[in-house]
Amino acid sequence: MTDRISSVETIDVRFPTSRHRDGSDAMNPFPDYSAAYVRLRATSGAEGHGLVFTVGRGTEIQVAAVRSLATMVVGQPVAELIADPGALARRLVGDSQIRWLGPEKGVVHMAAGGLVNAVWDLAARRAGKPLWKLLADLTPEQLVAQVDFRYLRDALTEAEALALLNAVEGGRAERERLLRAAGYPAYTTTPGWLGYDDEKLARLCVEAVHAGYRLIKLKVGGDLADDVRRMGIARHAVGPDVRIAVDANQIWGVPEAIRWMRELAEFDPYWIEEPTSPDDIIGHAAVRKALAPVKVATGEHVHNAVMFKQLLQADAVDVVQIDACRVAGVNENLAILLLAAKFGVPVCPHAGGVGLCELVQHLAMFDFVAVSGSTDDRAIEYVDHLHEHFADPVRVEGGRYLAPTAAGMSAEIVPAALAAYRFPDGPEWAGEPVVDLPSGSR
Amino acid sequence: MTDRISSVETIDVRFPTSRHRDGSDAMNPFPDYSAAYVRLRATSGAEGHGLVFTVGRGTEIQVAAVRSLATMVVGQPVAELIADPGALARRLVGDSQIRWLGPEKGVVHMAAGGLVNAVWDLAARRAGKPLWKLLADLTPEQLVAQVDFRYLRDALTEAEALALLNAVEGGRAERERLLRAAGYPAYTTTPGWLGYDDEKLARLCVEAVHAGYRLIKLKVGGDLADDVRRMGIARHAVGPDVRIAVDANQIWGVPEAIRWMRELAEFDPYWIEEPTSPDDIIGHAAVRKALAPVKVATGEHVHNAVMFKQLLQADAVDVVQIDACRVAGVNENLAILLLAAKFGVPVCPHAGGVGLCELVQHLAMFDFVAVSGSTDDRAIEYVDHLHEHFADPVRVEGGRYLAPTAAGMSAEIVPAALAAYRFPDGPEWAGEPVVDLPSGSR
Repeated sequence: MTDRISSVETIDVRFPTSRHRDGSDAMNPFPDYSAAYVRLRATSGAEGHGLVFTVGRGTEIQVAAVRSLATMVVGQPVAELIADPGALARRLVGDSQIRWLGPEKGVVHMAAGGLVNAVWDLAARRAGKPLWKLLADLTPEQLVAQVDFRYLRDALTEAEALALLNAVEGGRAERERLLRAAGYPAYTTTPGWLGYDDEKLARLCVEAVHAGYRLIKLKVGGDLADDVRRMGIARHAVGPDVRIAVDANQIWGVPEAIRWMRELAEFDPYWIEEPTSPDDIIGHAAVRKALAPVKVATGEHVHNAVMFKQLLQADAVDVVQIDACRVAGVNENLAILLLAAKFGVPVCPHAGGVGLCELVQHLAMFDFVAVSGSTDDRAIEYVDHLHEHFADPVRVEGGRYLAPTAAGMSAEIVPAALAAYRFPDGPEWAGEPVVDLPSGSR
Repeated sequence: MTDRISSVETIDVRFPTSRHRDGSDAMNPFPDYSAAYVRLRATSGAEGHGLVFTVGRGTEIQVAAVRSLATMVVGQPVAELIADPGALARRLVGDSQIRWLGPEKGVVHMAAGGLVNAVWDLAARRAGKPLWKLLADLTPEQLVAQVDFRYLRDALTEAEALALLNAVEGGRAERERLLRAAGYPAYTTTPGWLGYDDEKLARLCVEAVHAGYRLIKLKVGGDLADDVRRMGIARHAVGPDVRIAVDANQIWGVPEAIRWMRELAEFDPYWIEEPTSPDDIIGHAAVRKALAPVKVATGEHVHNAVMFKQLLQADAVDVVQIDACRVAGVNENLAILLLAAKFGVPVCPHAGGVGLCELVQHLAMFDFVAVSGSTDDRAIEYVDHLHEHFADPVRVEGGRYLAPTAAGMSAEIVPAALAAYRFPDGPEWAGEPVVDLPSGSR
């Protein structure tokens, strides 16, 4: 009997992180890190796990989208899916009726990503490899075949992508050895949430340096005087040689971003992240030009490869921040990695939230082994939240992510956590009716 | 007692238009024009109607999004809502948790638009005016206060918007008189659906010219030889003086768009619409430069004002095609009309589908009376489908939309149609299980 996908279960799981203002920034004062969690089951008993990260309210919309798209996955032969997840990605993204709701953006696009990632997880489990290794063992031709180039060819053709991959293929084995031995650089956002007081900020900065981090990140954009004071505290705490990135989470318009950041220049910020709307390619280019040598970073809300293509074409970014859950899964992130390599721009993945570190580490490590071939000026964001709920949690030591060794994409949340934090009926949510009210109400 | 919104009903309504391939194009071979239909009710009994247009599968996701956002509308005082729909728009778009699912794009953004438009419909009904007249009676200051300028100021400031509106304020009364007397130009897409055969194409072209249209539109991008033949038939049928726009519905990449359109140049296409991804600002600019004097048009999938701002900043479009349901309602479309006026680019609204003609005519007519002050090179798309289901259907005579006179935004679908076409339980859907299957299955 052909092994087929027998069910796709989608679970609304929410962690009440807003109770301690973990994750608080200028746009997200009270996030509850959440996910539309996806579990594929095959008739053989094989499983694939994926998730779409969300921040609380609205997760039910994301769940509805995954459930709608899941009708295109149930019943499919497992062998066909895992042999060519790119074909599934094209079907999910290209459905002629559902694409009206995007196209290639927002809830439906992230739903496609959750399903595609779950199929890659299934593929890696079947292969007995962590996802980064599964990808790094594909030939350049196989990798190129997993990308939809339709809207990318004015910046990157199949032939150029192949040439890029071929050029670094010879060094794969040596870089894999280095990765397994020394891991991949991390940076930490733990010190810098807006909701933390000055004492906690200073203490966490010092701890971060002692832990081995060479780059930390602070949230900014709430109040200028606060930002000046907090940047001063952080710079004093970490000294002149540790890089401090700042992150405005889209709070500013273009002129405001430039004015505000000039007030912080004396503290030598390394990059300004999300200075304005993530859609504003031309705005990012203007901010970058005005603020150089401060770098411009964005990506966690950049909704597809077409947008990344333009950010690169327009010289609008110095740092590409891929996100494991924003786009249509591993395949689209492969396209973005190839674009970044073509333009010579380093990738520093967005992570944190719930599960983003677990998922995205595979993409960054694969990039090092088989695409860019470099970790220079690259680091994966790290935040020490919620990893305890994962079956294969990230391991970060001495400021570096250690390469995962378990088979899969590390997306699996343990059943006990799913049961406890399931929204709204899990026991962690009992007696917390206020949390699902609209913003402004708390 | 304060009059408050007592309920928001959201209905999944789908019309089986794919049975006759009405609306077929290169990306949408079998659309079923549908809507997440929104009905606000107040404790006083007052109603407001809105809708989010969709094309079949996935409408249930759109409905889920409207229902989630509707929790921010239920219980609100009617007087406050209709005095300042812009405040509601900012709350819906800016919710600190839900915005993760956009931001300002896709399903959640369109859901905000459906609710905001329903509030404007309620406001216009209360005022006893069609929406275009309600808007045209607001002062420049009131109009500017309805726009969120956060991400727009690098292209358009509040002061510039005010100056634009003030400059044409004196002529409002005369233009209103002209509008009431002669209506607003229309163009027709009825002849040109890809699913129609050559005979039907030729016949409908001739009929369109006889009906008074000076601009018709053909779908292209399926097959080049077919397009060459069909353009020849259409040009022969309408003669040299009637404009023929063509619409690729995003089927091409940038180099392909340029190559394909050069093959059609001999037939003097007026504009190429959606040559590539609607997100590709830089790509549209490249296509425009390569194909001039053929114009470039886009907008039905341009997901917010930030994207329109950039299309204008980058000289990427000759024609701005606003859509009543894509963005966060009347307020964001007001921002887009102001941007287009600032850059001197004409607005030719996207319409068709179900209800898009009814809604968007109000915005174009308001633009003529109070924003751009012109109908030169402007026309509202018209397709003769599904108007019979509306309480206040559009009236198009001699190739022109007549100004609506009934109070409201013309969004109301009559109860009998809602009952008949409700998905999946309406009688029109009985025995049609195949229609909700994924693409490729029919």
